Amino acid sequence: MKNNAKDIFYMKEAIKIAKKGELTTSPNPNVGCIIVKNDIIIGTGWHKKSGKPHAEIYALKKAGEKAKQSTVYITLEPCCHFGKTPPCCIALIKAGVAKVVISSLDPNPMVSGKGIQWLKKEGIIVKVGIISYAAESINKGFFQRMRIGIPWIQLKLASSIDGRTALKNGISKWITSSKSRQDVQIYRKKSDAIISSSHSVIMDNALLTVRKIHRIEDKKKYLKNQETIKQPLRIIIDSKNRMTPFHRCIKEPGKILLIRLKYDRNRWPKNVEQVILKNNTFRINLIDLLKLLGKRQINKVLIETGASLSGAFLKLNVVNEIIIYMAPKMLGNYSKPLFMLENYKKLQLVPQFSFKNVKKIGKDIRLILIKNKKGNTTYL
Amino acid sequence: MKNNAKDIFYMKEAIKIAKKGELTTSPNPNVGCIIVKNDIIIGTGWHKKSGKPHAEIYALKKAGEKAKQSTVYITLEPCCHFGKTPPCCIALIKAGVAKVVISSLDPNPMVSGKGIQWLKKEGIIVKVGIISYAAESINKGFFQRMRIGIPWIQLKLASSIDGRTALKNGISKWITSSKSRQDVQIYRKKSDAIISSSHSVIMDNALLTVRKIHRIEDKKKYLKNQETIKQPLRIIIDSKNRMTPFHRCIKEPGKILLIRLKYDRNRWPKNVEQVILKNNTFRINLIDLLKLLGKRQINKVLIETGASLSGAFLKLNVVNEIIIYMAPKMLGNYSKPLFMLENYKKLQLVPQFSFKNVKKIGKDIRLILIKNKKGNTTYL
Repeated sequence: MKNNAKDIFYMKEAIKIAKKGELTTSPNPNVGCIIVKNDIIIGTGWHKKSGKPHAEIYALKKAGEKAKQSTVYITLEPCCHFGKTPPCCIALIKAGVAKVVISSLDPNPMVSGKGIQWLKKEGIIVKVGIISYAAESINKGFFQRMRIGIPWIQLKLASSIDGRTALKNGISKWITSSKSRQDVQIYRKKSDAIISSSHSVIMDNALLTVRKIHRIEDKKKYLKNQETIKQPLRIIIDSKNRMTPFHRCIKEPGKILLIRLKYDRNRWPKNVEQVILKNNTFRINLIDLLKLLGKRQINKVLIETGASLSGAFLKLNVVNEIIIYMAPKMLGNYSKPLFMLENYKKLQLVPQFSFKNVKKIGKDIRLILIKNKKGNTTYL
Repeated sequence: MKNNAKDIFYMKEAIKIAKKGELTTSPNPNVGCIIVKNDIIIGTGWHKKSGKPHAEIYALKKAGEKAKQSTVYITLEPCCHFGKTPPCCIALIKAGVAKVVISSLDPNPMVSGKGIQWLKKEGIIVKVGIISYAAESINKGFFQRMRIGIPWIQLKLASSIDGRTALKNGISKWITSSKSRQDVQIYRKKSDAIISSSHSVIMDNALLTVRKIHRIEDKKKYLKNQETIKQPLRIIIDSKNRMTPFHRCIKEPGKILLIRLKYDRNRWPKNVEQVILKNNTFRINLIDLLKLLGKRQINKVLIETGASLSGAFLKLNVVNEIIIYMAPKMLGNYSKPLFMLENYKKLQLVPQFSFKNVKKIGKDIRLILIKNKKGNTTYL
């Protein structure tokens, strides 16, 4: 193999093992590491969980003495600071590695490039940028939070083919099939937080929790140990203080944020926190909410709510991905819309995305749309 | 090859050549014929156009004397009556063929099975039902018209991801991309008739004609000779006599039916015919329209119209396929709906189809949905 082809080959392997941490590393990124000497892999490692050793440390431990004069493939720039664990740069230098190949620089502007400088200063050959899109694509939330301070936002919806979410009388159970609803569980599981509105939660008597997964192929992939399901942070937009300690959702274990305009006097259980976020027009400031989530190290958010709040997030131009489960039904003009938006006068003004993926899920289809890169980003 | 595998192999070839007539045979069906002797194909033929010889005649002519004691594969039961051409059964008997393998019986209940009886009576071995779904799938319109007297109905729509067809102010040019609009031309070309409403035609200043096709791959497939484009019959539902001889659409060559509640006193050009079709509530009787089209030998109809007429056809349960071009845009709650339907009280009552195919067309996706087989068929 040519040198570059070799680098790409090993880096792809490193990306593959990095993904093993998909459901556990947050708020940290997924990182994979492969150590190669004389075309033989002598060590591999991936980051499992915040507080546990980084990918490089596991791989170096496996390689042992052989790590001397080896080439190390890492999907993300090694850290150079003392956090919960000592910096990986020191470990690489101590091990006497000859070359370090990195997929992507650390997206954190405070430290980006510093790890590389340190390694170079110690005489290690450093190569950066091998399939860097892949390293980013497995860490979209982490990269976005590091760059602009807010999480990666996915908006999930379920509708008929004519974009309707419920009949006029409010009946919406169920427009989509049970397979689609099961598929949503995987998105919830991959999210650090779920945002909904008190209106949706009360209407649907929703829990917003991750349920056990029943489809065998998904089980294999995501849930070796269903007993230790990590529950995402639940965030309920509740501008009129409609949530009470007696709602079913509140009683489920896991932390809840109630986003409000003013506190109430209820006695709330310990898992519930009221947060006041007001904008100039005395409504909930959703941008401040996203910034708060960024500060609280939330990488990925899933929005599951009605037409009004979905529309509000769309208008703010903060939605990165839209996931629509579409049933082959027609509900007609009397039924409820998918998005409450403005009365646009020109087609050029409407929100516009790009289709990324379409998949059949049971009787339904799942559409994934992504934000156009040219989109307006004036929200920060 | 085993006997049955051999039959399937040759029948698939016959289906393939039958398709060559896709754009020209209507009102007749597409038929292909292959004559085989000692495992060698000695003659092939397909039906080109009403009035021209049937597939069997072409194939027998090519086979010549060799046809004696051969096996003949035909996608549709050979005809036994004197129509525009003499019956094919006579030709097969005269040629002295040993065996006839037929994909599907003639769907016309008046003649179905009679061709076979005749051949058998003459001592020819007859085998029926080899991949019969394929013979039907290339002749959906013809089969449906023969069986229940009305054409195969395709409903074409263009919408945003939230099922909207225009802004509140009526602007709809263009929600979908030019590639999608080009794709529609192929559906028009494959249709014998197009139905629209005077409202849609006047709003869009529409022509409802087949345009020249620009995409090279489509050109190759459909249009060796763009100069002789066959224009579908144009049908305009015009209950308030809003169409006048001065509309752009009227001046385009090709026959037009104006479906009305009463005649007007305009002087119409020769290509325009006014048809009065009233139901009990003094509205246009759409079922009578479809029956009329069946009588006039229309096999396939494409409906291209607004939410009101689209909804009316849906409610009548006569739509066989829905084709939606969907753009990755959101138009919101103020914009125009895809279907005007009833205010349904239960989800079990809404029209329900099945996804048949989803394809990316430029920036858009094209969804094809088909009628559920269990659907109510009480409309006749």
